[in-house]
Amino acid sequence: MKIALDAMGGDHAPKEQVLGAMKAVEAFADVEILLVGNEAKIRPFLTNDQRITIIHTEEEILSTDEPVRAVRRKKTASMVLAAQQVADGKADACISSGNTGALMASGLFVVGRIDGIERPALTPTMPTIDGKGFVFLDVGANSDAKAEHLLQFAIMGSVYAQKVRNVAKPRVGLLNIGTEEKKGNELTKEAFALLQQSEDIHFIGNVESRDLLNGAADVVVTDGFTGNMVLKAIEGTAMSVFKMVKAAMMSNLKSKIAAGLLKPQLMGIKNQMDYSEYGGAGLFGLKAPVIKAHGSSDANAVYNAIRQTRDMVAHDVTETVAKTIEKINSK
Amino acid sequence: MKIALDAMGGDHAPKEQVLGAMKAVEAFADVEILLVGNEAKIRPFLTNDQRITIIHTEEEILSTDEPVRAVRRKKTASMVLAAQQVADGKADACISSGNTGALMASGLFVVGRIDGIERPALTPTMPTIDGKGFVFLDVGANSDAKAEHLLQFAIMGSVYAQKVRNVAKPRVGLLNIGTEEKKGNELTKEAFALLQQSEDIHFIGNVESRDLLNGAADVVVTDGFTGNMVLKAIEGTAMSVFKMVKAAMMSNLKSKIAAGLLKPQLMGIKNQMDYSEYGGAGLFGLKAPVIKAHGSSDANAVYNAIRQTRDMVAHDVTETVAKTIEKINSK
Repeated sequence: MKIALDAMGGDHAPKEQVLGAMKAVEAFADVEILLVGNEAKIRPFLTNDQRITIIHTEEEILSTDEPVRAVRRKKTASMVLAAQQVADGKADACISSGNTGALMASGLFVVGRIDGIERPALTPTMPTIDGKGFVFLDVGANSDAKAEHLLQFAIMGSVYAQKVRNVAKPRVGLLNIGTEEKKGNELTKEAFALLQQSEDIHFIGNVESRDLLNGAADVVVTDGFTGNMVLKAIEGTAMSVFKMVKAAMMSNLKSKIAAGLLKPQLMGIKNQMDYSEYGGAGLFGLKAPVIKAHGSSDANAVYNAIRQTRDMVAHDVTETVAKTIEKINSK
Repeated sequence: MKIALDAMGGDHAPKEQVLGAMKAVEAFADVEILLVGNEAKIRPFLTNDQRITIIHTEEEILSTDEPVRAVRRKKTASMVLAAQQVADGKADACISSGNTGALMASGLFVVGRIDGIERPALTPTMPTIDGKGFVFLDVGANSDAKAEHLLQFAIMGSVYAQKVRNVAKPRVGLLNIGTEEKKGNELTKEAFALLQQSEDIHFIGNVESRDLLNGAADVVVTDGFTGNMVLKAIEGTAMSVFKMVKAAMMSNLKSKIAAGLLKPQLMGIKNQMDYSEYGGAGLFGLKAPVIKAHGSSDANAVYNAIRQTRDMVAHDVTETVAKTIEKINSK
């Protein structure tokens, strides 16, 4: 299979993108990478171009660009060209560590939506204490959502959890302000009823944001506004608490010694909370996998995003979602 | 001043409520407590009833009661009677550690709203890394909100921050999914414009949930659905990370020794994140202060809630909010 990789997006591009691509082709004999970006900048890092093809372009989308306008105007930007490979049938999927909004716009305008999917959803896999993680959508592709969109999110998340994350019967939870059926706002009340009726998912009811890291569900659905808020609250709090623990450990000689003794355990926690291990955030609902790798991705995170993308292509995630949606809409 | 305290609400009632009340009257010569609850259960703990009067009742609202129905039916429940003291002018404010929904209903139906305030807001003060904390509203009094409600929240939060928390010019932030002006959903876009025009607050723009614990603003406003989600995400994440750190420290002998060395520092972090130090959550927008102390409150948390309530009464928080709202509505 062919995966188009935006070599220029991300804080450490193109170096880490190139290293991650080489690592991936070495690990997966069935993967071919189309590296889209400035050839002169890519070459110095490309020590082995087996199954790696450079598609040269000098244009780039910047992290400061206004997403929709940038995608419309910079048609040869590395990110847009990567999406174009997919639209032209030259690649099966694409990945970028660049501007999230621009990648969503590229996915929407260039790759296009699955028939019947009204709203794509930005979908990371989040860490949990038990290390299993959960699929969380939408975390910000759209600010407002309808109940039907949440049902579509539930289907997309379930297919992904099943096919890529190997969860046999993914438990779908609706993010809400209480676990009781009647809790919430207009949207969650309506969505609850829809999710409960669906035969295509295993709905377990409402889940609260405080229980997410405890593994309350395998797939958690919410509107993009709430999802974005909760995602950032989780990230910010974890970071703040770690910062406080670190400061506490550096406060005197005794605490520094203790920190030294605890180092292996603390590294373990850090790795457990590191969601780059789960790959990038998928932009679900498009005609092919479009993956947003973290902006600060290193070679390993890029490699994980490629592995994840490969799994999505190999297990027909897009086709399965499309068929399920078609079945529902034809009823 | 007189403060009515529901002696029967909370996980450790009435013991901790009674101990907290005694501690408060000892500390504050101007405070008189009306302890509402079962006299036979209260007496064993009441070793000093100086400026403490028991208002006896045997009825109670349970944590499992359906809030609105319970308040309508159990008119002599300790919580409802405490609110009734305020409505009858026999107390200046009331406090309960019981059922949050029932206390909101008691506040709304028995104490009543300030003229011109459409929606009360449940308002905790949250911890920040720098120890200053921020006022956060609404975290769940209502699920849906309009932009005008968010402006009222901003005014209520600012008056409280100024008068009780001694912040000279409280920075008001609108919780949003990005810091740029045009970010967000319909509600936040409309609220942004309203907040920006207001002369009664110091609006600093949008704040993201990931920056809350870093002290991004002194007062953070949002709708009750989002606020509840973010509050619980912060609480749940902090608890999960602490749990992981604790497990890591108990994993072997070396780590246990390290844990022993770090104990004072880790206790420091725990205290810093302990928001019972900031008092209870206010139900803002009512004709008198109604305070929800944490369900698990110990005597110290009850004492802090009384101190906070005393400050609200002493500094005319309710009257100042009422006048500001009246001024705005008469324009």
